[in-house]
Amino acid sequence: MAEAAKVAETQLGYFDVPNREYVITVPATPAPWINYVGLEGMLCGIVSNTAGGPTWFRDPLERRITRYVQVGCNKDRPGRWLYVRDNETGEFWSASYQPVTHVKPDAYECRHGLGYTKISSSYAGIATEMLHFIPVGEHLEVQRVVVRNDTDGQRKLSLFSYREFVNCTAANDLTNIQYSGHLAHVDVDEQDSRIMYVITRQDGARPLPFFAVSEPVAGYDTECDVFLGDGSIEDPQVVREGKTRNSLVGDDTAVGVFQVDVSLSPGEEKVLHLILGVAEPRDKDDAKAILGRWLGNDEKVLSALEELKSYAGDLLSTFQCSVPDDHMALMVNTWNAYQCWINFQFSRSISGYATGLGRSMGTRDSLQDLLGYMHMSLDGARRRILELMNAVQLQDGSCQHQYSALTKEGAGEGGFSDDHLWSVLAVAAYVKETADIGILDEQFTYSDNRDLSEDLYHHLLRGIRYSLNDRGAHGIPRLRSADWNDTIGEGPDDEVSESVLVGIMLVKMAKDMMRLTELSGREELEVEHDGQKLPVLDYLKMVADEATEAVNREAWLDAGWYARGTDSKGEWFGVPEREEAKIFLEPQTWAVMAGVADRERAIRAMDSVHERLFTPNGIQILTPGCTVAPSGGFHVFPRGAKENGGIFCHPNPWAVCAESILGRGDRAYAFYRAILPPAASQPAPVHYCAEPYVYGQLRYGSEHRQFGKCAGTWLTGTAAWNYVAATQYILGVRPEWDGLAVDPCIPADWQGFSAVRKFRGATYEIRVSNPNGVCKGVKSVTVDGEPIRGNVLPAFEDGKVHRVEVAMG
Amino acid sequence: MAEAAKVAETQLGYFDVPNREYVITVPATPAPWINYVGLEGMLCGIVSNTAGGPTWFRDPLERRITRYVQVGCNKDRPGRWLYVRDNETGEFWSASYQPVTHVKPDAYECRHGLGYTKISSSYAGIATEMLHFIPVGEHLEVQRVVVRNDTDGQRKLSLFSYREFVNCTAANDLTNIQYSGHLAHVDVDEQDSRIMYVITRQDGARPLPFFAVSEPVAGYDTECDVFLGDGSIEDPQVVREGKTRNSLVGDDTAVGVFQVDVSLSPGEEKVLHLILGVAEPRDKDDAKAILGRWLGNDEKVLSALEELKSYAGDLLSTFQCSVPDDHMALMVNTWNAYQCWINFQFSRSISGYATGLGRSMGTRDSLQDLLGYMHMSLDGARRRILELMNAVQLQDGSCQHQYSALTKEGAGEGGFSDDHLWSVLAVAAYVKETADIGILDEQFTYSDNRDLSEDLYHHLLRGIRYSLNDRGAHGIPRLRSADWNDTIGEGPDDEVSESVLVGIMLVKMAKDMMRLTELSGREELEVEHDGQKLPVLDYLKMVADEATEAVNREAWLDAGWYARGTDSKGEWFGVPEREEAKIFLEPQTWAVMAGVADRERAIRAMDSVHERLFTPNGIQILTPGCTVAPSGGFHVFPRGAKENGGIFCHPNPWAVCAESILGRGDRAYAFYRAILPPAASQPAPVHYCAEPYVYGQLRYGSEHRQFGKCAGTWLTGTAAWNYVAATQYILGVRPEWDGLAVDPCIPADWQGFSAVRKFRGATYEIRVSNPNGVCKGVKSVTVDGEPIRGNVLPAFEDGKVHRVEVAMG
Repeated sequence: MAEAAKVAETQLGYFDVPNREYVITVPATPAPWINYVGLEGMLCGIVSNTAGGPTWFRDPLERRITRYVQVGCNKDRPGRWLYVRDNETGEFWSASYQPVTHVKPDAYECRHGLGYTKISSSYAGIATEMLHFIPVGEHLEVQRVVVRNDTDGQRKLSLFSYREFVNCTAANDLTNIQYSGHLAHVDVDEQDSRIMYVITRQDGARPLPFFAVSEPVAGYDTECDVFLGDGSIEDPQVVREGKTRNSLVGDDTAVGVFQVDVSLSPGEEKVLHLILGVAEPRDKDDAKAILGRWLGNDEKVLSALEELKSYAGDLLSTFQCSVPDDHMALMVNTWNAYQCWINFQFSRSISGYATGLGRSMGTRDSLQDLLGYMHMSLDGARRRILELMNAVQLQDGSCQHQYSALTKEGAGEGGFSDDHLWSVLAVAAYVKETADIGILDEQFTYSDNRDLSEDLYHHLLRGIRYSLNDRGAHGIPRLRSADWNDTIGEGPDDEVSESVLVGIMLVKMAKDMMRLTELSGREELEVEHDGQKLPVLDYLKMVADEATEAVNREAWLDAGWYARGTDSKGEWFGVPEREEAKIFLEPQTWAVMAGVADRERAIRAMDSVHERLFTPNGIQILTPGCTVAPSGGFHVFPRGAKENGGIFCHPNPWAVCAESILGRGDRAYAFYRAILPPAASQPAPVHYCAEPYVYGQLRYGSEHRQFGKCAGTWLTGTAAWNYVAATQYILGVRPEWDGLAVDPCIPADWQGFSAVRKFRGATYEIRVSNPNGVCKGVKSVTVDGEPIRGNVLPAFEDGKVHRVEVAMG
Repeated sequence: MAEAAKVAETQLGYFDVPNREYVITVPATPAPWINYVGLEGMLCGIVSNTAGGPTWFRDPLERRITRYVQVGCNKDRPGRWLYVRDNETGEFWSASYQPVTHVKPDAYECRHGLGYTKISSSYAGIATEMLHFIPVGEHLEVQRVVVRNDTDGQRKLSLFSYREFVNCTAANDLTNIQYSGHLAHVDVDEQDSRIMYVITRQDGARPLPFFAVSEPVAGYDTECDVFLGDGSIEDPQVVREGKTRNSLVGDDTAVGVFQVDVSLSPGEEKVLHLILGVAEPRDKDDAKAILGRWLGNDEKVLSALEELKSYAGDLLSTFQCSVPDDHMALMVNTWNAYQCWINFQFSRSISGYATGLGRSMGTRDSLQDLLGYMHMSLDGARRRILELMNAVQLQDGSCQHQYSALTKEGAGEGGFSDDHLWSVLAVAAYVKETADIGILDEQFTYSDNRDLSEDLYHHLLRGIRYSLNDRGAHGIPRLRSADWNDTIGEGPDDEVSESVLVGIMLVKMAKDMMRLTELSGREELEVEHDGQKLPVLDYLKMVADEATEAVNREAWLDAGWYARGTDSKGEWFGVPEREEAKIFLEPQTWAVMAGVADRERAIRAMDSVHERLFTPNGIQILTPGCTVAPSGGFHVFPRGAKENGGIFCHPNPWAVCAESILGRGDRAYAFYRAILPPAASQPAPVHYCAEPYVYGQLRYGSEHRQFGKCAGTWLTGTAAWNYVAATQYILGVRPEWDGLAVDPCIPADWQGFSAVRKFRGATYEIRVSNPNGVCKGVKSVTVDGEPIRGNVLPAFEDGKVHRVEVAMG
């Protein structure tokens, strides 16, 4: 199907499909609509549609460079601002709307691309364009500015950059100003006043941030108070008067203001570069050398942008599809995949919703994120698995809940009943993608015992054993501090409460471990259990069987769904006898995904989901919302918010997967569409609030004043799971142990679709036809014109392109 | 001397002496120039000169009501803003400059008084006046607004209030927005839309904040996003269009916007009240009942303001003076005393410099603060001593470093070598002020042993013993994590480093303990020491003598000053052999104050201070500043900043005390004047930066780019100690064990001064003459016309006024 140029257009913006850009057409979006620069996770930044957002080097807590305060009325400040002053009238405005918001641009457009953002605006006949990106392999954030005179007369302008530097670690910078305020220190290069160095003294080992402009400067300021003078950030005295004062900051708020004066003939344009970078080692000469290669070299800048586009395009080329749903196509082909990549780099650390002040590489978050980006970076996935497991896993098999990608150290308490299980899922998915079974032989130690080194396989096995040995009175694993749902649980020492979700997950993970055991030739291993030694496969089968049996025996309800767990008194919740939280989403979906439910129960459970939890805005996590949570404290949120009956998006794709497994393609698709951003954000993008190009963590549920509003975009497990649901379950192009399965489950009225998938060193061009209008079922498959048995494409590993024809029916 | 109406006038403001107000005449001060409302420490707020600042109930961390983000370019937001819209032109502006800063008022004035702030401004012929205060005994913050039409035509206006409510505890609100953002919830009263209730769900026990306006409303908004619409806080769509939308917030940013429409004839004015309060219990009916008494009752509001002024006036009446220095007079009579009172209420928790996010009732801070407000609240001082000691003291005699005034619990680690010693000083000062020796009999327990109850005397004794038993190789107490100077020290487990300052303080505290022992009749007590029992006075004398001897033997330097301590290798610092930090201020001053130095050494040490540390902007804490601190980490600050050679103000008055003890009145006064805010802030108040009416924690030293700039105003031990230095040492009106000493040490060219002091139930009207132009020395004293021996006025405790004539010479 041909892709339209503008898709999902609203009064706030549209998708430019061919250019892989989302175009925002008004500056005052209902929330900052952001993008990321720095796709390699080294020098990185958030860039909003008004150029707001911070820049950091590797870690937004420890190595923050510029400030961003996300709380309250002015959430999108500060930013990479440029003030433009007409030196004849004295009028000035902002090239990206903020912070001179009372001057409305005559024209405005923001284009968020993959790793770059371009903001164009026009006022009083002066057009500006600001392009932001970080070149591949460099530690430089480039702001390429074009200023053009669209009038008939000569125009004399002064341009004033603005950057606001943090004084130390981001947390101290924000909360401990009586300390941090004294650290502000910027030097201007003694020979070249186009360059400033951000000196902070608290840690000599940090790289040295620098900021520079490509043109000769009329002056500079580094002291915010001097820059503002008798005005404010909307009305800085220096800009108002058109004259920087060459201030050198010594405390309080350090800023990067360069004044560049330009005179433009009619139609003339001027290009300049503002470059923020870091030098390692901490050395001014190093910084100058780097700048020497870039400053004013517009050809290099523009070719670096093309290189970045290629880099991103290569990532996305691993999977592309053509489907009869423009919204789905642009999410799968571009934005959902891009969001997965961003989650790879930033986990849950910093977004419009996360402040970057915590140690927020979450264990289970990162393990689930792998599902979404693994095919785009096999090496990255492998490294992440090993790095993370080495950082967090404890000798008892459980895991610390977080780790630092900077220090590679685990952080946070254990006590989560599920962290360790996700590692089996992630490794299984990795092996299915790569056939790299050798990863199981990698040796490393435990977070609480650096003397004990074992291979990855044994690390995973300890996780299984941990859950097996931590079962409660009903034979179901204990809930402890929490399972996947952070907001239920009674604490790490609670010995009573149980989690049906973990019980179900344990089945899935034990089954995957059986295959990993076989594939790695470890069948001879024996495991000690109850004082006797069992062959490992028998042991794992016992784990899966006992958990399956316990869940079905204890947690299946006559009402037609699975209970969620027991509280600290051993009483069930997620059951119809409760006044609140009668049914939860998670166990229904996983019971299908793990094969715990037989078909009859699976159908009944998922019908209950449809009947009781599904809304036009997505599937609620539970219903009804609680005044007092049966376990944990999710009633802190109003009913319909977050885990208290909100449309928590992360498990929504689990329902898509489950329905796909059941073969009910229309329902799977309805679930998928309900939270698909380009669709969900229409026709009321202001109410929807969030960016239409990425998933959010949640939408508010039907019990909430803001029903349907979306929040928590970018960094959420929703991204990976929706990507999995769309590509592997709806389209059914799914890596399996022995090859690439094609097992679609689509709406009955789809006549087919096509997809290109890179897999184990070959490229598969897959064309699926659905002549009989079924939802599921593959009648025939040919590869390169030859029919094959079944629907699993062999792994050719030949570097070639293979044409695959699939007929459903 | 008659007080001039305007004192210390600059281009930014002046003191209105008769009205006890500081008048700010420009809105864009170099930093927010703040004031406090809520003198009783219950409902409280900061009010800046643009009406910025938060409101909280009892505790700015746990019970924050409105938001204030103090970081970066826009430090003074949000606030108690009022937008004024001209409904004929559509133009709008702010009644307090912020946040519509691009519209400059035609006239502007802010008057900070004692517990109230009045901001007047005028634009387009509309004058507004906003008065902010919290009535005595009430949990209500009143904003009384007067709007007046100063033009010849009828004017139709809409007024829009703005309050921004925090969503939970202040720390989570600022840093954990993915949690806190979901808690925003405001209800508007169903019967009376002039009232809104700020519902947050995370703690049912919290009081219920409410916000109301006295006039019928044209509408309201509680959802910030709706209020801003397509604009920003400088340009909210609702204000621009003149129409609220009656939004009910359910997440993100909760605001309190009321729209009141008024039509004013020429010269007509309108009064309205905006009231922010809390109801306890958490009950809407209770809130409505409170509002019923206040809303629209302007007579009650105005009389409450008068009552507040009386309340503050009564506090200040405890000490008033007339001196030949207007700056000193207004500080001693009003502002320094007021600052001491504010420190009593808020310790180091929240100011323009402290974010209120920590547990910042510091142990030694609060104990020193007592010196400054004790005479204004004998009961308050007594309660604070007992509450604090009960919260923080450990069984070994040392103290936790912080405590919560809300929960009355200690917080933070021990390991500070001085916390416990300040308690002796505070109790001694309390007994000197009150003669309430019975306080020593109060029984309470230890923070780490709630089963062990002892009287206050034994608590203090444990502190002395702790220091005695924690001496290092030179017989000087160990430095541990830090002494008074937070930034030196090697950690709680360091057994080597020693603190000369603590050694000297120990002498002073042991001597005070001897007097407390005698006064409380505890001479018979015996103390175990080195396996034998000593009479307590012998024990204390031994402590004082050994410490005196050790300090003089080990720490006195031929160069003419005392060393500061030893580092973790046992090597001395604060010695001339070091390249950096050759001399520190603290030990020189305390060696005089504690009587450790003989007169010759005292003179030499203080001359070294004068020669090496004194600058026109105050006395530096050390010199030269360090690239690597000899102990601790103060080199994190640039040279000349804070403890790294800055003019740390807190110990400056120690030098005043020391010079007064030495009788060098001209030098004492020069030291005092150097950081006296009304003097120091001239002639360059923009460079000085801070409020000219209160002390700051520091000024930058001569090695720093910002030499002379002041920071950290309001909450600092500088306040109490300067008050002590001015009243008890320069003016010499000093409570002593046996009465009120009059022992001035003044500039030689002062011909005298007078003072009124309330003391132990009587009032002393003291007139001091200095006919011979001496600095020190009292020749004769008469009380009520009768000569007395010596210069200690007896404690009459008769409720009467006694006239005291003192002749120096």
